[in-house]
Amino acid sequence: MIRAKIVGAGGYGGVGITELLLRHPEARIACLVDVADVGQPMSALYPHLTGFCDELIVAPDDPKAQAPADVVFFSTPDGVGQQLARAELDKGTKVIDYSGDFRFNEAAEYAEYARRIGRDPQHKAPDLLPQTVYGVAELHRDQLNRETRLVGNPGCFAVSCLLGLAPAVRHGLVDLASLICDCKTGVSGAGKKPAATFHYPSRYDQMNAYKLAGHQHVMEVERELGLLAGRTLAVTFTAQVVPVCRGIMSCLYGTLAAGVKPESVMEAYRAFHRDNVFVRIFDRSAAIGTVHVRGTNYCNLTVDVDVRTNRLRVISHIDNLMKGQAGNALQNMNLLFGLPETAGLDRPAFYP
Amino acid sequence: MIRAKIVGAGGYGGVGITELLLRHPEARIACLVDVADVGQPMSALYPHLTGFCDELIVAPDDPKAQAPADVVFFSTPDGVGQQLARAELDKGTKVIDYSGDFRFNEAAEYAEYARRIGRDPQHKAPDLLPQTVYGVAELHRDQLNRETRLVGNPGCFAVSCLLGLAPAVRHGLVDLASLICDCKTGVSGAGKKPAATFHYPSRYDQMNAYKLAGHQHVMEVERELGLLAGRTLAVTFTAQVVPVCRGIMSCLYGTLAAGVKPESVMEAYRAFHRDNVFVRIFDRSAAIGTVHVRGTNYCNLTVDVDVRTNRLRVISHIDNLMKGQAGNALQNMNLLFGLPETAGLDRPAFYP
Amino acid sequence: MIRAKIVGAGGYGGVGITELLLRHPEARIACLVDVADVGQPMSALYPHLTGFCDELIVAPDDPKAQAPADVVFFSTPDGVGQQLARAELDKGTKVIDYSGDFRFNEAAEYAEYARRIGRDPQHKAPDLLPQTVYGVAELHRDQLNRETRLVGNPGCFAVSCLLGLAPAVRHGLVDLASLICDCKTGVSGAGKKPAATFHYPSRYDQMNAYKLAGHQHVMEVERELGLLAGRTLAVTFTAQVVPVCRGIMSCLYGTLAAGVKPESVMEAYRAFHRDNVFVRIFDRSAAIGTVHVRGTNYCNLTVDVDVRTNRLRVISHIDNLMKGQAGNALQNMNLLFGLPETAGLDRPAFYP
Amino acid sequence: MIRAKIVGAGGYGGVGITELLLRHPEARIACLVDVADVGQPMSALYPHLTGFCDELIVAPDDPKAQAPADVVFFSTPDGVGQQLARAELDKGTKVIDYSGDFRFNEAAEYAEYARRIGRDPQHKAPDLLPQTVYGVAELHRDQLNRETRLVGNPGCFAVSCLLGLAPAVRHGLVDLASLICDCKTGVSGAGKKPAATFHYPSRYDQMNAYKLAGHQHVMEVERELGLLAGRTLAVTFTAQVVPVCRGIMSCLYGTLAAGVKPESVMEAYRAFHRDNVFVRIFDRSAAIGTVHVRGTNYCNLTVDVDVRTNRLRVISHIDNLMKGQAGNALQNMNLLFGLPETAGLDRPAFYP
Repeated sequence: MIRAKIVGAGGYGGVGITELLLRHPEARIACLVDVADVGQPMSALYPHLTGFCDELIVAPDDPKAQAPADVVFFSTPDGVGQQLARAELDKGTKVIDYSGDFRFNEAAEYAEYARRIGRDPQHKAPDLLPQTVYGVAELHRDQLNRETRLVGNPGCFAVSCLLGLAPAVRHGLVDLASLICDCKTGVSGAGKKPAATFHYPSRYDQMNAYKLAGHQHVMEVERELGLLAGRTLAVTFTAQVVPVCRGIMSCLYGTLAAGVKPESVMEAYRAFHRDNVFVRIFDRSAAIGTVHVRGTNYCNLTVDVDVRTNRLRVISHIDNLMKGQAGNALQNMNLLFGLPETAGLDRPAFYP
Repeated sequence: MIRAKIVGAGGYGGVGITELLLRHPEARIACLVDVADVGQPMSALYPHLTGFCDELIVAPDDPKAQAPADVVFFSTPDGVGQQLARAELDKGTKVIDYSGDFRFNEAAEYAEYARRIGRDPQHKAPDLLPQTVYGVAELHRDQLNRETRLVGNPGCFAVSCLLGLAPAVRHGLVDLASLICDCKTGVSGAGKKPAATFHYPSRYDQMNAYKLAGHQHVMEVERELGLLAGRTLAVTFTAQVVPVCRGIMSCLYGTLAAGVKPESVMEAYRAFHRDNVFVRIFDRSAAIGTVHVRGTNYCNLTVDVDVRTNRLRVISHIDNLMKGQAGNALQNMNLLFGLPETAGLDRPAFYP
Repeated sequence: MIRAKIVGAGGYGGVGITELLLRHPEARIACLVDVADVGQPMSALYPHLTGFCDELIVAPDDPKAQAPADVVFFSTPDGVGQQLARAELDKGTKVIDYSGDFRFNEAAEYAEYARRIGRDPQHKAPDLLPQTVYGVAELHRDQLNRETRLVGNPGCFAVSCLLGLAPAVRHGLVDLASLICDCKTGVSGAGKKPAATFHYPSRYDQMNAYKLAGHQHVMEVERELGLLAGRTLAVTFTAQVVPVCRGIMSCLYGTLAAGVKPESVMEAYRAFHRDNVFVRIFDRSAAIGTVHVRGTNYCNLTVDVDVRTNRLRVISHIDNLMKGQAGNALQNMNLLFGLPETAGLDRPAFYP
Repeated sequence: MIRAKIVGAGGYGGVGITELLLRHPEARIACLVDVADVGQPMSALYPHLTGFCDELIVAPDDPKAQAPADVVFFSTPDGVGQQLARAELDKGTKVIDYSGDFRFNEAAEYAEYARRIGRDPQHKAPDLLPQTVYGVAELHRDQLNRETRLVGNPGCFAVSCLLGLAPAVRHGLVDLASLICDCKTGVSGAGKKPAATFHYPSRYDQMNAYKLAGHQHVMEVERELGLLAGRTLAVTFTAQVVPVCRGIMSCLYGTLAAGVKPESVMEAYRAFHRDNVFVRIFDRSAAIGTVHVRGTNYCNLTVDVDVRTNRLRVISHIDNLMKGQAGNALQNMNLLFGLPETAGLDRPAFYP
């Protein structure tokens, strides 16, 4: 059994991976670590886990937090993983970090990201960056294997955009200057911490855009699409919140490149995602929405061309806490231990 | 493997048992039957099942609907099961019916129920009634076993009330004339069929009571509590709808009987439910709500005494589509085949 | 024109009275006071007021906060009004306080209330208590007039319970030991301040009871009903939260007193509320809910008798921010200045 | 007093104009007409109007439906107004139609629209089309006056897009081939009639796009923008539904035309909308959303340029039932009778 440690267990990212590990056939939870709620059973924070996970939260400096582990999930804010990862790696523990700390291979790139979110641009462990792998299996599966020790789990918006635009960029279907990501997220994407803008009365019948000056996930999108395109590019990105709990729906637009036939688009998408078990492709006639991926690791793509305007339109649906966070992290763990990618993830959720 | 047939597969009760059977270790779906959407794959009705359950819906008179089965779930409205059950029983198939058709052992009792819901009081298969078992394992576990052939799955409100009041009535804790069930349900309890009162705009910021003249589930509650009390009794019952999707919260009240000590109540509840794995008991200090049972077969009870008024107050929380419907049906199936009661049900759902 | 000052303008109670005063024919806002957001225009806190109320929030010690006023609304937490009311009264300004500070005429009664909510039981201005009027016009209209200087606006739950139970208690319809208030509130009742339990993801599909050990509004209910009954009494009270924004639905139960005929109940209710323009009475056949009073000062009562159990059941619907708070406060202001009770309140809100 | 008749009174468009007329200083309701609920008081359909509008619904062929009126609002589906308008016009009654029947001045244009929504392309009163005015005052105020007899009230999505893109197109700020409208609507936009996709359980935690093959409102947008541009153009339009009740948020994109300076954009927008009292303009720093226009006739625009991609981004917020329907219709009525544009519309709604 893979022994997994969760740092930041008390947040939504922590409870998400906890739920998944509880039903994983080859892994078990070794330790739950957090700086808050220390000494509380996990089921006191999350009563739905009563009888399933009553383990106590331990502080990071508690000796129990050093229980032997094969993998550690850092479900922690930016800045934490980069301080703690080395000690874990030195013990031979694989590290999967949810934050932006290990999404970049170069310190300069990280610095730009850190500036954007108002943090110290100086990475605390820059020597680790060259070995980290950007944890989107659909783009980097060949780097996610038993040899991999350090993974930067992607941003939730970024996953939705990348799975939806990568085929188009990879196959040269679109004008690279024309890309727009219009992204709507459910409120759980903001995490567990209460805030005025996520207070129920201010949110229940509200939709709004935010961070128009620049959302930090854009950098990942541009870097990865740039790698596929073989040149740098910039996208317009609009982050919005709507009153669902779980779900991201990203509408992705790009003008078809000269000579691209609309009828070739669907084929290119199917080809690109052929081996990506968690990506399903639909055409414009499908009556699908975010609820159909809720609670699962799937990304459902509606692929469409507006022939009147010669424009590609892809609608990408994920659960921001699953394919956008804990589910994707577990997918990465499976790859890092040579397990089937779908282990512990091969089930539908409930509806409605 | 237990082969299960689902009649009425396209409704919420049908998709609920489908989801559960897909992950059950000892059962598989033999056939999906419905009068609507015939010829459609289940995943066209429920896109979250894409790749998990793409079987076609067949009509009741389709020969495929006669595929050999060990158990049939009638997830059908009142009146259907009583017409179709005999043929299934004659083939040796066990029958679990979701409606009121097999919740009563006597034709006269059924007639009163049928009148209340505006249906023909004449049962279509009255000779089957003596053998049917009211499918609440916590009250009738000894009758739910390999010999049992016919089960009437209970009403969702009824389950919540019975699990919460049975200990008090059984142990004589309350004045039987004082019982009140103030019940709030999520909207999924009304099923899949659109109606003005469940249209999103008329429901999203609304709560209301309904059927004040008498809800049909009251009869089950009174019958079962009467069996426990050894005498007939009547309860005041108020059905209400609030804008959640899944969940029933029933506040149950009764004046403590003469001589009952408040401190003895919790003990009596713990004793009564000692072997009921799906019932969890909390005291008034617990911060629990319906979301903590969502997607699971649990019933969480908050047991409390208001000493100022000498009144028992029990708050019962279930998922109306699970312990209130499909989950409870699967629990019954497990018992009917000698399996552990929790098979396929031993997992937490996701949160938030 | 009546000049109104609002202390605590930035909260839900403050914005509520602001909205109402903006459309009142005989009143205008003189000053907006708060300890937070000082110097901000009201429309920065509440963008829907852009162009309607762009006045700046001033601090309590700002000289502008002393602008001449005819009435001051203390939309402030417990403990504030009792410290500031005297200075206002001394200037001849009438005071309407939203908190529990002036709901009681005796210091001992206040002390008990204060203990229940964990506050200093010593009132800061006990000599003012004898003159304060409990601001429910339907019960104390004769004390709410041009001579009245000090009003304690009632608790939101209390209003809903009192309007629903007062007729029964006043007319001796029910056994006083049998009263139960099962109350559900929307989330806005908790105010503007973010908290874990009102964070959108933890609330959107959740219902739960809280403060089972005793909600502070019970004291008002028992005191007022006791005045009507001519003796002390105790009620069982269950506070619950459901995911609506605005609305309280209270189900109120009481066993009919000996000799009371069910058919006399409706008549007694109509008689009691004959002159109460904001109370509408319906019978059990009415399809009404909280949405039908949203945004208005109405209380809609469904009055019913369960003859099977000989029990009165009244369902009381209000908007917790209107009849439960700001609307009721404005109704009080109207009475204190000899205006029609409905001034500024005589309009329907929008639906859906 | 202006006497107003409402045809289709029982729908959301009908109750919306009813609410507005009830508080209008210069108008009153003459008659409520519908084909359903005939003989019912309006307050039976909409209990929040109890005491405010208890008038009976009359059938179209009822003599009472011919009560003298100065204006008639056809809050009816496509196809109704074109059959009934002439008779009203012949009596000297002005006509404001909510549907697509009178949004086009040419029969050929209407035919194309009708084909798109699957209706008979042959207009029933083509001779009336030349005189109809497209009822967006911000674009056609000079045609909306005492002489105007026939108005086609615009589509809700169209209003949001036009107010947001008109300044850019009029001032030549954007490349006309680059326009994208990414539009999200609340569920009330679908009207009052229940449907599977708007059933509460299928909608509460769901977002989805629909009508990808082409939404009918696009034609209005393209026609009006084309008029401003002086040439035909096509836009990419994506309709989406999110679980709010009221509100449209449209994100509008266009590449800046060669030579356009980003800093000139805001000025152009302010100039264009200088006299449009219902349009408010904000920059990217504003924390606004659809809730801030809920219940009002305002359109709040966030105007922004993404300088990294040289792209204009405008976010347009309206209440789909107000500026997107009944509020805009009342604004039109005011203009047709020489009243201030804001009569009956000059008030904030409630929050939260």
